Amino acid sequence: MAGAAAHRVLIVGCGFGGLEAVRVLARDPRIDITLVDRTNHHLFQPLLYQVATAGLAAPAISAPIRHVLRHEMARGRLTILRAEVIDIDPAARAAVLDDGARLLYDELVVAAGATHSYFGHDDWSRDAPGLKTLADAFDIRERIIGAFERAERTDDLAERAAWLSFAIVGGGPTGVELAGTLVEIARHTLPQEFRRIDSRRTRVVLMEGSPRVLGAFDERLSASARRQLEAMGVEVRCGCQVTAIRHDGLTFVESGGPPQQLPARTVVWAAGVQASPLGRVLAERAGATLDRAGRVVVGADLGVPGRPQIHVIGDLASATTPAGQGSRPVPAVSPAAKQMGRHAARNIRRRLDGQPAQAFRYRDYGTLATIGRKAAVVQLALPGTLQLRFSGWFAWVFWLFAHIWFLIGYRNRLVVLIDWAWSYWTFARHARVVAQRDSAALPPTDRTTGTSPQAPAPSPRP
Amino acid sequence: MAGAAAHRVLIVGCGFGGLEAVRVLARDPRIDITLVDRTNHHLFQPLLYQVATAGLAAPAISAPIRHVLRHEMARGRLTILRAEVIDIDPAARAAVLDDGARLLYDELVVAAGATHSYFGHDDWSRDAPGLKTLADAFDIRERIIGAFERAERTDDLAERAAWLSFAIVGGGPTGVELAGTLVEIARHTLPQEFRRIDSRRTRVVLMEGSPRVLGAFDERLSASARRQLEAMGVEVRCGCQVTAIRHDGLTFVESGGPPQQLPARTVVWAAGVQASPLGRVLAERAGATLDRAGRVVVGADLGVPGRPQIHVIGDLASATTPAGQGSRPVPAVSPAAKQMGRHAARNIRRRLDGQPAQAFRYRDYGTLATIGRKAAVVQLALPGTLQLRFSGWFAWVFWLFAHIWFLIGYRNRLVVLIDWAWSYWTFARHARVVAQRDSAALPPTDRTTGTSPQAPAPSPRP
Repeated sequence: MAGAAAHRVLIVGCGFGGLEAVRVLARDPRIDITLVDRTNHHLFQPLLYQVATAGLAAPAISAPIRHVLRHEMARGRLTILRAEVIDIDPAARAAVLDDGARLLYDELVVAAGATHSYFGHDDWSRDAPGLKTLADAFDIRERIIGAFERAERTDDLAERAAWLSFAIVGGGPTGVELAGTLVEIARHTLPQEFRRIDSRRTRVVLMEGSPRVLGAFDERLSASARRQLEAMGVEVRCGCQVTAIRHDGLTFVESGGPPQQLPARTVVWAAGVQASPLGRVLAERAGATLDRAGRVVVGADLGVPGRPQIHVIGDLASATTPAGQGSRPVPAVSPAAKQMGRHAARNIRRRLDGQPAQAFRYRDYGTLATIGRKAAVVQLALPGTLQLRFSGWFAWVFWLFAHIWFLIGYRNRLVVLIDWAWSYWTFARHARVVAQRDSAALPPTDRTTGTSPQAPAPSPRP
Repeated sequence: MAGAAAHRVLIVGCGFGGLEAVRVLARDPRIDITLVDRTNHHLFQPLLYQVATAGLAAPAISAPIRHVLRHEMARGRLTILRAEVIDIDPAARAAVLDDGARLLYDELVVAAGATHSYFGHDDWSRDAPGLKTLADAFDIRERIIGAFERAERTDDLAERAAWLSFAIVGGGPTGVELAGTLVEIARHTLPQEFRRIDSRRTRVVLMEGSPRVLGAFDERLSASARRQLEAMGVEVRCGCQVTAIRHDGLTFVESGGPPQQLPARTVVWAAGVQASPLGRVLAERAGATLDRAGRVVVGADLGVPGRPQIHVIGDLASATTPAGQGSRPVPAVSPAAKQMGRHAARNIRRRLDGQPAQAFRYRDYGTLATIGRKAAVVQLALPGTLQLRFSGWFAWVFWLFAHIWFLIGYRNRLVVLIDWAWSYWTFARHARVVAQRDSAALPPTDRTTGTSPQAPAPSPRP
């Protein structure tokens, strides 16, 4: 290698935080970066529900990491490895990969994110998949489409109703988006495409444990979101605890009442969050403290206390805004992850300059969630403590443009959509995205029900 | 049901043949149609290699059957079932589905297609996947992308070379297209995206058992295709028999010489064709005769001899042109399947009119294959026995427009690509396509090789 020994920074995870850290660090000629990710793509997770509901193809919301970082790569100081970090050895300053190889580092940025938590009921994952990866999205897409197909095949009215019932557990943004989109599909996309079922009779139930949906929003927006969902046809049940999930439905308790049954062949889990297993590794190896969700409690500089060379950012970090900002927890949203990635990278560069690390200050620009076609809620943070809140059609347009704007940053969305029309004329290949198939459940099949679809005598629509 | 008892036609398979049959039959108010397919989508197979090589997203070349046939569906006499026909009972005029349900028919059109044949070496499928379904394409895409990733990870030069070696077995159109595209990816798409490997050093070997590639074409076009492939950088080996395939390479014999080894971590099978298992069912249940590839030998009217109510079309049919056309076998290409589908449907309508069935005449418009960017061969059949042959850039443009033209017929390709940009504003959802994941192999992982990718000291490019 030419010149002085480079400062070796290892970044684990290429989500919003890791990607941003690479971009800032790549500008510094003193730094040699290695980026490790389990997949080959960066995922625009806010639109993943669109892939799960078949509105978008996977390549529209994901891009090969090597393509996204091609300019940083061209500077010659970035190595990208598709691998999984399974252990960390802080004494030796080494990370251990899945094949046993060790990567030495001078500084480590852990941005491994989070997955869903079943609150101790991991067996529910088989019947109620969560939505974090492209493979999850394909799995859910397959279940949704398969449910309508199976409803069309069966003559058993109760079974048909169960195939046409969908339960979404968790009333956060993902749950709300999934529920709204499912109703749209059932009411607007599919009605003309089946002969025996009336897809408009589909039942979509959104179950939330707390008293309101979109708990991160202002109460008035929560109420507005609920009204918009109900106007679309979603059955919203708040204060509702799921106590069991089976392949043919779930059991729940509402407001402390008796257990009730919901026969629904398709259940999607949009509830708890659980930090990456690397949180536990950091606890064991580097003495990090974990919060209840397994996230690493970081210092003001986003470092692991006592381990200044280990930075934790994004959904894996449990960070708090400084006292001047009210000491509130930094939310697990993509703008926060990006800001943390940028901040950790700048602290690394400051250290090389001999300057002290700075404390992270979270800039809250607001938050927004879509509910369905022409329905959304937006909560914008203005200077001071002012907030701008609105919902409905204008909020939806705002949401749409905000998402298109951020997708364009990754050469995706509109740009990529138009690109595709011409990709055949160029060497660009935007679909180089591989879903991790091993985490995907098999599609629901049910060979024992003895349905008897007798084609020539379709039952008339009620 | 209103009116006289409808004539019940059951169609198995929604490829080019089945789809065309449905379209012709749906126009006849006397006929009630049931279409059964294992998947929920019609696939434009001629462009499947583009999905396998990540040039196109799956939804660009496939469309939900229910969407493709929505106008036919609107007439109220078409039932579509996502199911698999596993047995046929000609005496009872019934087909048996995978869940045991029986579908009664008056006439049966079997258009179940073909898959790849490993010539008795079915164990090769694990290390050398074929390309017939979307799941196959995802599997191959994952292997190709994964191979470059693993080459980047390893420090073992022999292993790296094996990851950068690709063998395509079979020099028909699919093999030629895959080989040409792989070279393009290695030479044009990837070179800037890796730090330790030089993707331009990728070796792509196309192995063909017969003396020339594209055997269905004129000899001069075969020679031209070979020259074009070699100019792009493909290593073409004709008269080459593969005798063993392992996860790390294959053994072959060339021109009767001694066995040779090709260390290649990625092998794609583009050789033999094997008819759907329904061919064997028809042989056992309906006394049909099968040819060597398991295809059903049909009569001049495309019926199973002695079973006038059973029609076999497309790749599952072994049909022969009438004596006036030279008694040649009808090729297993999509235009032939479409013509057969139309013909069988018209014969069914003729029978209802009390007219005799007509003999099938294949119209050969020619054949074309692409080799890569700006390279293709075209062989057009002109009136009489004239043929127009050309290759190179103009052939490639011709190929491109021909394929775009046929894709537009399914609301795909350009139309869908542009549609996507606006799909968010409408209710259209073009990505409702489910790959059958159960047939997909796991991505190649190799945890025992003990590679040691040490990030800070990348080996310089040779």
